[in-house]
Amino acid sequence: MTIEELKKDKPWVKRGTVVFMSDFGTVDGAVSAMHGVADEVDHGLRLEDLTHEIPQFNIWEASYRLIQAMTYWAPGTVFVCVVDPGVGSDRESVAVLTKSGHVVVTPDNGTLTHVEREVGILERRRISEAVNRLKNSQRSYTFHGRDVYAYTGARLAAGIISFDEVGPLLERRPVMLHVQDSVIKDGYIYGSIDILDTRYGSLWTNIKDTMLEEYGIGYGDDVEVTISYRGRIVYGYVLKLCRNFTEVEKGEALVYVNSLLNVGIAVNQGSFAQEYGIGTGEGWLIRLGRG
Amino acid sequence: MTIEELKKDKPWVKRGTVVFMSDFGTVDGAVSAMHGVADEVDHGLRLEDLTHEIPQFNIWEASYRLIQAMTYWAPGTVFVCVVDPGVGSDRESVAVLTKSGHVVVTPDNGTLTHVEREVGILERRRISEAVNRLKNSQRSYTFHGRDVYAYTGARLAAGIISFDEVGPLLERRPVMLHVQDSVIKDGYIYGSIDILDTRYGSLWTNIKDTMLEEYGIGYGDDVEVTISYRGRIVYGYVLKLCRNFTEVEKGEALVYVNSLLNVGIAVNQGSFAQEYGIGTGEGWLIRLGRG
Amino acid sequence: MTIEELKKDKPWVKRGTVVFMSDFGTVDGAVSAMHGVADEVDHGLRLEDLTHEIPQFNIWEASYRLIQAMTYWAPGTVFVCVVDPGVGSDRESVAVLTKSGHVVVTPDNGTLTHVEREVGILERRRISEAVNRLKNSQRSYTFHGRDVYAYTGARLAAGIISFDEVGPLLERRPVMLHVQDSVIKDGYIYGSIDILDTRYGSLWTNIKDTMLEEYGIGYGDDVEVTISYRGRIVYGYVLKLCRNFTEVEKGEALVYVNSLLNVGIAVNQGSFAQEYGIGTGEGWLIRLGRG
Repeated sequence: MTIEELKKDKPWVKRGTVVFMSDFGTVDGAVSAMHGVADEVDHGLRLEDLTHEIPQFNIWEASYRLIQAMTYWAPGTVFVCVVDPGVGSDRESVAVLTKSGHVVVTPDNGTLTHVEREVGILERRRISEAVNRLKNSQRSYTFHGRDVYAYTGARLAAGIISFDEVGPLLERRPVMLHVQDSVIKDGYIYGSIDILDTRYGSLWTNIKDTMLEEYGIGYGDDVEVTISYRGRIVYGYVLKLCRNFTEVEKGEALVYVNSLLNVGIAVNQGSFAQEYGIGTGEGWLIRLGRG
Repeated sequence: MTIEELKKDKPWVKRGTVVFMSDFGTVDGAVSAMHGVADEVDHGLRLEDLTHEIPQFNIWEASYRLIQAMTYWAPGTVFVCVVDPGVGSDRESVAVLTKSGHVVVTPDNGTLTHVEREVGILERRRISEAVNRLKNSQRSYTFHGRDVYAYTGARLAAGIISFDEVGPLLERRPVMLHVQDSVIKDGYIYGSIDILDTRYGSLWTNIKDTMLEEYGIGYGDDVEVTISYRGRIVYGYVLKLCRNFTEVEKGEALVYVNSLLNVGIAVNQGSFAQEYGIGTGEGWLIRLGRG
Repeated sequence: MTIEELKKDKPWVKRGTVVFMSDFGTVDGAVSAMHGVADEVDHGLRLEDLTHEIPQFNIWEASYRLIQAMTYWAPGTVFVCVVDPGVGSDRESVAVLTKSGHVVVTPDNGTLTHVEREVGILERRRISEAVNRLKNSQRSYTFHGRDVYAYTGARLAAGIISFDEVGPLLERRPVMLHVQDSVIKDGYIYGSIDILDTRYGSLWTNIKDTMLEEYGIGYGDDVEVTISYRGRIVYGYVLKLCRNFTEVEKGEALVYVNSLLNVGIAVNQGSFAQEYGIGTGEGWLIRLGRG
């Protein structure tokens, strides 16, 4: 759909769903206050959560978790994403409309990085707080999640404001975090370790399954895995590319394709990250070769 | 609205929303069992949660978290609040109707302290368990959250029972915890540290932003902050009253007005409580002066 | 109801509720992706959670938590239970219909143990992934919770597929974990410690309240409690059978009947498990006698 068609079709109003994400945790009443604000805007909305356990101020992880779940929600779903170390500063508050027809309401501080790269943003608007702010919240400066983002997301999903009424049009591209690209070079695949599958301790890389194919590694093949941190090799071994964890013994390591179709490294019923002391982000490099 | 008008208008039935809070955690099936009971009472209800991570048996924190979120939910919303160290003892089980039109169903052990002080309670009724108890739950004595409170809250929100049918009228005032008042005295503002913004480690005091105004401190002003524990000074420094955390460097401390319009003390992207070893409640005192 | 009547009545479609349980935690987007898939199948479904904090790969606890909450949800409620260390292996993916009219969609690895024992399963069908799999998810092998179970559970609850359309009929009995039976023998009641009431540290045994009655212990009576691990006695004392924790002093131990009507051992406002170093499962034995 073109942006004009989307604006006319308003899938977010048809859908009437707001999904919240933050680094607030759920030990106090903050998340519930956001739900309450949205419920009061329109009792008919579906209110859901992505996660509120983003590590504090970790914009990279917010961006990643958003893309991990967003496309499994129907087009038109509105996401309210608040990891906002700069609350109240001059960072922009925006709502964006994606090529997939989703809407994201967020401080524009990098949380839109993966959405822009992997889905694409059609339009970005600055939230005019003069009109898009919870009534009587003017003396509160530190909880835009409740006073601005939840309120604006709910009013969009309820059809009370149109997308244009969010506020003035900005250029399309949001604030972007640096993202490493994976590459085939000198007979190897080079990539980064984007994030952990936290609960299980598996590594999720930025290497797409299609790159394995292009390089010529298939299921059942041996893969030479080398992981380094700032140039020092931390792990080197030959592992098998498996469809399922159970293709190796309990406690054994393997290469697999994760639920986002990126290459992962895991231990069957164990934690690869913990067992081998592997971290994520800046400085961590993974190299794959024929085993 | 008068209480008669509220009882006639029944905003809780129009709203049809039950919000649950407890100290149960979410690692087992207890919270879900409460939702299930409410859903079976009326499938049309909206079921939501405030938090279930209240520290065990911590009635003070329950009272505080309730007021933190309650007023951001529409009038008529029913809250089921179960922090109940005395389950099955002779503490009263009650439902109260607030001046704001909200309903709270709870063991009356102090959880209503802040609601009574800051919003006001219009009427309080003892829950008659003879009629307001989940069928076939008579042999269960230790889970009133499921068997009595969720069931009664849902039946109120569903319009199956009227507010009067909860049970006999009690005097209006619930069991109250001791609450310290903030005060201006001898040229200083004195207050207590009510609670932590747990996730970020900021202190939330009982000093209203209006008291700062009255005393003559404005945004941008220096504030002399002294924190003591049982008479011993633990922290003393001059900090700036900021609108936003970003007005100071990362790692620097500041004074701000929190999302409930009380004075808070924080470190930008750090934990004030942890960095300076500050606690909350009994014995902790904060004094503010001109810097 | 007979199975034919249930299949005609389709209480799961009337109910339109899907309750999710897993060992995924809620720190990333996995649970939200399952909700999103179900919402896209049918926006009218109620989506709820039982818990996602099952310890990783702990099928016993999954089975126990499922039975703890299931019967408090109305008949027809669909449960999607994913604790799946063998994802992608040859373990069966099934949907079962219980005597109570509930539906459970799960890898058949033992999670149905308590449901089969305490409620009973009427019919069990293998999920045919050829038809019951999220479109375009064929390259993903490690997230059946999202691609198969959430999708199938939602399509059942939405009435898009009938129960028979899940896939081929299997024999009724699912994979069963070993369950210890409690027994009265040689003048004592012998039982096992099934699980902890995690948050409070109370022990939940497999001894029904009716067995206490049969044996002749009533409320107010003294009970001789002996707990052993692999034959070695770890705890021995005489405790009172109480209705409520408050019948003993704070910090004192007691015997009680828990919310599932099994015998529990607790400390009033303390943790019995932690205080006396008690564990659960294999090797742990509890013996009750007249005090």
